[in-house]
Amino acid sequence: MINGERTLMRPLRWGMVGGGRTGQVGYKHRTGALRDGTYQLVAGAFDLDAQRGREFGTNLGVASDRCYATYQDLIAGEADREDKVDVVSVATPNFTHFEITKALLQAGIHVICEKPLFFTVAECDEIRDLASKNGLIVGVTYGFTGHPLVHQMAAMVAKGLLGDIRIIDMQYTHGFNAGDDTNAGDAVKWRTNPATAGSTFVLGDIGTHLYYLSEVVLPHIKVERLLCDRKAFIPTRAPLEDHATVLMHYDNGARGRLWSSSVNAGNMGSQRYRFIGSKASVEWSDSHPDQLLYEVQGEPNRILHHGMSYLEDESLAVDRMGALHTEGLGDSWANIYLWIAQAIDARMRDDDAFLASHHYPGIEAGTEGVRWLENCVRSADAGAAWVDYK
Amino acid sequence: MINGERTLMRPLRWGMVGGGRTGQVGYKHRTGALRDGTYQLVAGAFDLDAQRGREFGTNLGVASDRCYATYQDLIAGEADREDKVDVVSVATPNFTHFEITKALLQAGIHVICEKPLFFTVAECDEIRDLASKNGLIVGVTYGFTGHPLVHQMAAMVAKGLLGDIRIIDMQYTHGFNAGDDTNAGDAVKWRTNPATAGSTFVLGDIGTHLYYLSEVVLPHIKVERLLCDRKAFIPTRAPLEDHATVLMHYDNGARGRLWSSSVNAGNMGSQRYRFIGSKASVEWSDSHPDQLLYEVQGEPNRILHHGMSYLEDESLAVDRMGALHTEGLGDSWANIYLWIAQAIDARMRDDDAFLASHHYPGIEAGTEGVRWLENCVRSADAGAAWVDYK
Amino acid sequence: MINGERTLMRPLRWGMVGGGRTGQVGYKHRTGALRDGTYQLVAGAFDLDAQRGREFGTNLGVASDRCYATYQDLIAGEADREDKVDVVSVATPNFTHFEITKALLQAGIHVICEKPLFFTVAECDEIRDLASKNGLIVGVTYGFTGHPLVHQMAAMVAKGLLGDIRIIDMQYTHGFNAGDDTNAGDAVKWRTNPATAGSTFVLGDIGTHLYYLSEVVLPHIKVERLLCDRKAFIPTRAPLEDHATVLMHYDNGARGRLWSSSVNAGNMGSQRYRFIGSKASVEWSDSHPDQLLYEVQGEPNRILHHGMSYLEDESLAVDRMGALHTEGLGDSWANIYLWIAQAIDARMRDDDAFLASHHYPGIEAGTEGVRWLENCVRSADAGAAWVDYK
Amino acid sequence: MINGERTLMRPLRWGMVGGGRTGQVGYKHRTGALRDGTYQLVAGAFDLDAQRGREFGTNLGVASDRCYATYQDLIAGEADREDKVDVVSVATPNFTHFEITKALLQAGIHVICEKPLFFTVAECDEIRDLASKNGLIVGVTYGFTGHPLVHQMAAMVAKGLLGDIRIIDMQYTHGFNAGDDTNAGDAVKWRTNPATAGSTFVLGDIGTHLYYLSEVVLPHIKVERLLCDRKAFIPTRAPLEDHATVLMHYDNGARGRLWSSSVNAGNMGSQRYRFIGSKASVEWSDSHPDQLLYEVQGEPNRILHHGMSYLEDESLAVDRMGALHTEGLGDSWANIYLWIAQAIDARMRDDDAFLASHHYPGIEAGTEGVRWLENCVRSADAGAAWVDYK
Repeated sequence: MINGERTLMRPLRWGMVGGGRTGQVGYKHRTGALRDGTYQLVAGAFDLDAQRGREFGTNLGVASDRCYATYQDLIAGEADREDKVDVVSVATPNFTHFEITKALLQAGIHVICEKPLFFTVAECDEIRDLASKNGLIVGVTYGFTGHPLVHQMAAMVAKGLLGDIRIIDMQYTHGFNAGDDTNAGDAVKWRTNPATAGSTFVLGDIGTHLYYLSEVVLPHIKVERLLCDRKAFIPTRAPLEDHATVLMHYDNGARGRLWSSSVNAGNMGSQRYRFIGSKASVEWSDSHPDQLLYEVQGEPNRILHHGMSYLEDESLAVDRMGALHTEGLGDSWANIYLWIAQAIDARMRDDDAFLASHHYPGIEAGTEGVRWLENCVRSADAGAAWVDYK
Repeated sequence: MINGERTLMRPLRWGMVGGGRTGQVGYKHRTGALRDGTYQLVAGAFDLDAQRGREFGTNLGVASDRCYATYQDLIAGEADREDKVDVVSVATPNFTHFEITKALLQAGIHVICEKPLFFTVAECDEIRDLASKNGLIVGVTYGFTGHPLVHQMAAMVAKGLLGDIRIIDMQYTHGFNAGDDTNAGDAVKWRTNPATAGSTFVLGDIGTHLYYLSEVVLPHIKVERLLCDRKAFIPTRAPLEDHATVLMHYDNGARGRLWSSSVNAGNMGSQRYRFIGSKASVEWSDSHPDQLLYEVQGEPNRILHHGMSYLEDESLAVDRMGALHTEGLGDSWANIYLWIAQAIDARMRDDDAFLASHHYPGIEAGTEGVRWLENCVRSADAGAAWVDYK
Repeated sequence: MINGERTLMRPLRWGMVGGGRTGQVGYKHRTGALRDGTYQLVAGAFDLDAQRGREFGTNLGVASDRCYATYQDLIAGEADREDKVDVVSVATPNFTHFEITKALLQAGIHVICEKPLFFTVAECDEIRDLASKNGLIVGVTYGFTGHPLVHQMAAMVAKGLLGDIRIIDMQYTHGFNAGDDTNAGDAVKWRTNPATAGSTFVLGDIGTHLYYLSEVVLPHIKVERLLCDRKAFIPTRAPLEDHATVLMHYDNGARGRLWSSSVNAGNMGSQRYRFIGSKASVEWSDSHPDQLLYEVQGEPNRILHHGMSYLEDESLAVDRMGALHTEGLGDSWANIYLWIAQAIDARMRDDDAFLASHHYPGIEAGTEGVRWLENCVRSADAGAAWVDYK
Repeated sequence: MINGERTLMRPLRWGMVGGGRTGQVGYKHRTGALRDGTYQLVAGAFDLDAQRGREFGTNLGVASDRCYATYQDLIAGEADREDKVDVVSVATPNFTHFEITKALLQAGIHVICEKPLFFTVAECDEIRDLASKNGLIVGVTYGFTGHPLVHQMAAMVAKGLLGDIRIIDMQYTHGFNAGDDTNAGDAVKWRTNPATAGSTFVLGDIGTHLYYLSEVVLPHIKVERLLCDRKAFIPTRAPLEDHATVLMHYDNGARGRLWSSSVNAGNMGSQRYRFIGSKASVEWSDSHPDQLLYEVQGEPNRILHHGMSYLEDESLAVDRMGALHTEGLGDSWANIYLWIAQAIDARMRDDDAFLASHHYPGIEAGTEGVRWLENCVRSADAGAAWVDYK
């Protein structure tokens, strides 16, 4: 993969809803999509301010007449084009994900959507059925899970190098919301308002990354019971939380600990995962993402570096920069975007065999994230009580 | 303090029960006690094997006739000496702490005891009353809390540099018991047997270090509710635990997370503390104990090094090696032993004023550790349920 | 910059010589060039094997008839096209750089070339004159210098935060050539052969990165004298070196130490820079590139994280991912490619004012790298003697 | 060793010259000597201020009449005692080492002396002969070389795990002298004055630690040629240096790089050693002294922790705290003091067989340190030229 060769039928014609000049997330989508020639950005409704969105889009090389004011305009404007967009990414606040995704799918357009996907599992199920009926793919941008060392961990677990999984310890915290929201920007405001964010703040915003990555590494075990203790240290954020701890009991007897917070004052780079088995542990953190700690009890601790030939094939296959050269978050997004492109390409070719064994964060992954959030909220609302996972 | 000058009336005559050749803990006591000339080792019942204990003691310079076979012999043998031991350290398995401490106090001898102190708060209270009646000191060897950067954290909290305390995250884990106990040594066997270890394994063995250190740093907040989820991944250890997570709600609204485990395969140096306030966080770990992380949201993270003049006076006062020179665990024990010696010295001089303001891990600290364990077990036994702290 | 908006007149039509399936470096060029829509890959002579190169190019979306067998074919084939390539990147072994660059410039095509640029300063001067005469840009891919924290260091030096520069300590080492070359691949073979690599191995291959980055951070001081002690621990590599230490005396009295080696067995991520001034030091390493160490004597050490608002404007302007999100080497290359594109765009527009103040690694940077190598070799050949820099 | 059992004939009667209240170094000697019961502090001339020295000594438990005003008084006062001191430590400025050591040896007293031992090799030779004639031991406090991981490195080299040694990279730097000496204390003043410090500042003060430790790890290779580039960034320190780089060529073809500086602004914990062989490298730093990096090319990097059973016997034999428990610099000094005590004990018993194979930093080690300094100065004075080592 290191050379960036891709074997799609053709580059995908790609559009965006949101992701304009005033936010941070749009660049992540573009840097993920564009570097391999897999996608070509041809259309967009980039901004609530139509004029600003058009300027922005044309600066990026999108034709002026395909810079639309709204997602509805985009759907209408593209409908009859021969070179109609194949796929559109949704990079807007949470509360708009469902309606935009639904409209795009109804218009026959594949969708790539930000997480958390929707507000409820019921909405997820409706979208799943709609996509299935229309033969379309829904991808979800769990951007960190494209890193080659994540797939190294998954491969090591699958090979049994860790033995029986016993403890899962996960943390994604920062301190950017340690102060109150008096002067907060729009991105904070919509995230702390249930009407626009859904039933959670940090659990949905960053906690879902933890949960999905753990599913990628540990597909063989499932949560049976869960307890979520959440709190808003800045009271205006209630009933949403800026701090939460989730304890999980898995069906194999494993114990999970998950911590998500945005009031961890001063904390940087604390997205951490430790998977502990009866034979060994692995630990990965985005504070030094190119290193994987592999620890066998009674032996020297080992540091595995991305791109090295001693890694599992599954990791090397998705390595982009090669050893000694830092993989950034953009490289991870590029893998996610590529895998979704391969799914769309296969869907277009009706290649069900490929799809059956192809891994990418799709509607099921998005649904599981929402389901996990529903269970967390149910526990928290019951007074941080244990609830059966359902 | 850096020069090791001590101003006791005279060196204390010191004895040991346990701590002989076959265990690890005795050396920690001796290296803590002897380097400052504060204590002189003059007697001991070092070993269950009397002959081996005598050989050991005489190698250390103890007179042969003061190397006793049992603690009862020690008490009897010292009773009528003019140079009778002032204080005896108890470095034996948990289940013997109470009876030995009680006998020593009854014989008019000050006591320094390993943690966890006793099995129940009721026992602690009985010892407290006995010590008080006899005018004696009971010290507890919470050995990590002598480090100068622990006292830096406490001073920073006291000055308000962290603002309101919000989150306490603590971890003391290792993997030395990741395998089963088929070939385990005595030190594991007595620690995993309720008859000899009490009602906990890792919570008492290492978790109490976390809890006591947090009390030193945060004396102003108290646990109100607590939930303990514990498990024995090696089934033969049940009902004791080799893994536990404790969630705590404090009276100021803070949230605590504590993790203690001895099945964290391969894990080294993971005694970690992070205290998060509304203004800033501090973090300290024994994987690089000479550094303290101080993080103010929105500013560069800071690393404070022990012995530097920018530290608080409370930290510099207990620094032994000076900047650039590593403080080891032995230096921390030396501070603990010194503080207990100062308490004993003051007690001998009836200096109540000194004692009123002198900080050292005494009977109250030991009692609080046992109380915390009782609450943890009560929660765990109720199915990892929330319990009011009492 | 974070949104990836670019304001060139139009995307540049881009070609490649080399960079095909069997090497690692091509992907770095493409990931640097393509993510912003600044360049469009339209032509290439990717491979010595013409058929393999054509397959490769078409997989990347290049039209089959613009996948050429040789660079001569590329020049000929593009010559009369209306949509002729604007710029071509040269990603081939060192010994071909000069002839390919010269031919491209003669054909009126801008050039982006790998380092070390050419074999001699005389060649560099010839190319500089040719480019100047033809109104063309020559860019050099010093790929690490696009990182925002490199520019933070430069800005801090420029503001005087470090005081007078005293010591420069630099290291770029790895161990990939610790064994002999019996089974070495082509990339090692040409790098250790003077005919194809020029007069140095590791000094040119990785040492020039160190030297150029130091010029970016410290444009105001110059080397006056230099001593280079080099050695081939694998004898077949002689007269080229697999290990070298270079000592430098600067015109302001500063002292430099530079270490470059490819026999540092097992060593990973050791590209390190420390710039020490009379007031403070800064240190940056690609083992954790998102952090910059800033150390003022007598104060706590500080860790600065990329993307944070406390950084200098010069750093934030070139940040791509934003705080908390890892910048990879690809992001750094993307900045380099963008800056070269802006130079080409300005050149096309005859915007001399822009070019006069625009910083990018151009022919001068490439020339200085070659000049430094010439001085190193002169010193080494004189028995690791001090030589005046010229 | 972990239990601190020692099998000397009897504890050594120990005295000190220097090491009083106003300096830092005395505590290091005492904490090294006293913790094992190997030495008993019975006499001292602790301070130039006799009254202050007496107060200090009696606080430490030394009898008032054995707290002497001068070292001459100490020698005279102890001469006729039955319980005369066996050994005296010299913890005074460099320029006094020779005369005090000579006088003590003439009085039949073993000596433990700070480094750098004396000013010239000639002085060293004179002392060696005197000690030999009088049957006395001279120990030198190279305090860092007692760490168990130093001996792990030596054992790994001896077993051939590193293959042929190729590169030695060493650094001991700090920034405490980054500012000028206007308000410097006595300890800085005598160290920067040739009359009291000898012919070097940082090379003797901290550089000798590097050189001696490398001799412990690599006893089988010797320096053949050397180049020393030194400078005083604070001009008042000239002709002594506050920064020096030393390049070394060894008799097996290895290359050495050594950096010593006290103007590395803000730098903490940068005593680092990397020994690179044809098969593997090891790296140790006092910034995390409990960890040893062991790197085999092409395999995951390994972190070895002190006290773990996978270490070589030579390392475990000198481990004091056991795994998980930090070894401090004091523990390392304790080993050095113990090894010297064992040498003195053997000398007293005329046990030449023991002495023939017993390793400790003695007169030869001290002499080699002075010889190395003489070669460095000779090179520096010749304009940082290569000189043959002699």
